[in-house]
Amino acid sequence: MPFFQFPYRVRLADTDAAGVVYFANLLQIAHTAYEQALIEGGINLQQWFTQTNIALPITHGEIDCWHPIFWGDLLFINLIGEILSETKFEITYHFTGENASETVLAKGITQHICINRQTRQRNQLPQVILEILGNNDEIQ
Amino acid sequence: MPFFQFPYRVRLADTDAAGVVYFANLLQIAHTAYEQALIEGGINLQQWFTQTNIALPITHGEIDCWHPIFWGDLLFINLIGEILSETKFEITYHFTGENASETVLAKGITQHICINRQTRQRNQLPQVILEILGNNDEIQ
Amino acid sequence: MPFFQFPYRVRLADTDAAGVVYFANLLQIAHTAYEQALIEGGINLQQWFTQTNIALPITHGEIDCWHPIFWGDLLFINLIGEILSETKFEITYHFTGENASETVLAKGITQHICINRQTRQRNQLPQVILEILGNNDEIQ
Amino acid sequence: MPFFQFPYRVRLADTDAAGVVYFANLLQIAHTAYEQALIEGGINLQQWFTQTNIALPITHGEIDCWHPIFWGDLLFINLIGEILSETKFEITYHFTGENASETVLAKGITQHICINRQTRQRNQLPQVILEILGNNDEIQ
Repeated sequence: MPFFQFPYRVRLADTDAAGVVYFANLLQIAHTAYEQALIEGGINLQQWFTQTNIALPITHGEIDCWHPIFWGDLLFINLIGEILSETKFEITYHFTGENASETVLAKGITQHICINRQTRQRNQLPQVILEILGNNDEIQ
Repeated sequence: MPFFQFPYRVRLADTDAAGVVYFANLLQIAHTAYEQALIEGGINLQQWFTQTNIALPITHGEIDCWHPIFWGDLLFINLIGEILSETKFEITYHFTGENASETVLAKGITQHICINRQTRQRNQLPQVILEILGNNDEIQ
Repeated sequence: MPFFQFPYRVRLADTDAAGVVYFANLLQIAHTAYEQALIEGGINLQQWFTQTNIALPITHGEIDCWHPIFWGDLLFINLIGEILSETKFEITYHFTGENASETVLAKGITQHICINRQTRQRNQLPQVILEILGNNDEIQ
Repeated sequence: MPFFQFPYRVRLADTDAAGVVYFANLLQIAHTAYEQALIEGGINLQQWFTQTNIALPITHGEIDCWHPIFWGDLLFINLIGEILSETKFEITYHFTGENASETVLAKGITQHICINRQTRQRNQLPQVILEILGNNDEIQ
């Protein structure tokens, strides 16, 4: 069950001379959806990441490109969260299009660990992150 | 008078290790606003640019960076259009922040010519572009 | 055994406000190495991809981020190829630093299929690609 | 007289669905040339910008796009410096191609001020920057 859905309009800067979205930019779009999920979960990105000791660096990213995605396409990205351990989580991103939301055009994955920014040691996932990832109520 | 206003949330990918938005990405954000203005003006980007002979390449871009812009900032970008000739137009972009909309944080400019995609010769600006740039009614 | 080694200087545009290379940009850097391998293998990118019917779209990309990579770092990227089928290949990219080439800082993967650009049907991998991926002689 | 010349191979990520280099990416390429000029002038980017109090933020950028630039093109970028004041300098970038170096394909400009990172006050340009910009001997 997705915890967040993000609409995204593909911009010219996302595409390349092959006429479709450049593969690595799909992961950039996925991360944009993740950032918006944090914001709507109550996190002020600028304050949270500069004024707390918590960092959530990405340790792994993955993208499957199943159908070409074009400039101007309106995408809907569904985010599914999974807690992998006390200090690690994963988000899966299903990219669907405006008119055929059953067809998954691309699938992304990001894995994040929680660390203390100063010591670089692992840190328990903060409660607000657990709540955001577990929010299965608002998306049908 | 602006013909379009575009809200934009600064994403991590827009920033650099100096902690602020990378200067050239401000022009990318400006172009994103321009694309959205075209869409809301009734243009289907994918169809229009592949099925007509019209292209609107940028011949000049400019950016003034007056105040630092940070990750997570919510920007409002006001677009002001000017018809420079029968075949050329310019858009000025005023970047303002969420809480201090009088302060212009950055100012961008793009100049576009209208050409025939096949012959690469100058072409009159299409009516829909004139209408979009002249739309001064909807923004206060 | 790597078939190609690519030196790359990390630029400001590759980094983000967390002070390190933005994760998806590591895949962009990997692809840059792949492009250079094609060029040094005798392929004129512009001509080959516009004048032949062959396309090599990426179907899967992956990145493991093991150590932070900073602005100005000089990377060496070793490319290891594997033919997965008559129409599919994979490249693994080991990112190492200037002074500690045994430590792999990050590892990327791209998978490519060969298709006919017109029919979108699978096509045998061209001989030049097999030769580039099989070139194990020049790198120690 | 240029103080630095930088060769650059256009990569797929620089282009867009219009088939040419995306306009704002030309400024990114210009900045890459500037970074390389600093490195070859003896500056360790990572150390210099984190361990000194000096910052050289860009206050203005500009790009003129005169001829289309394609994926795989080998560019040569000539950098011309000008000291505008004790605390400000400008670099002009002439983009030329492999085979027709007289034709300038695009022209970029960046303006930088020198500030103290802590106080954000203007600071005199450091000697090493003056030397890099004034290096007219090595390029014919």
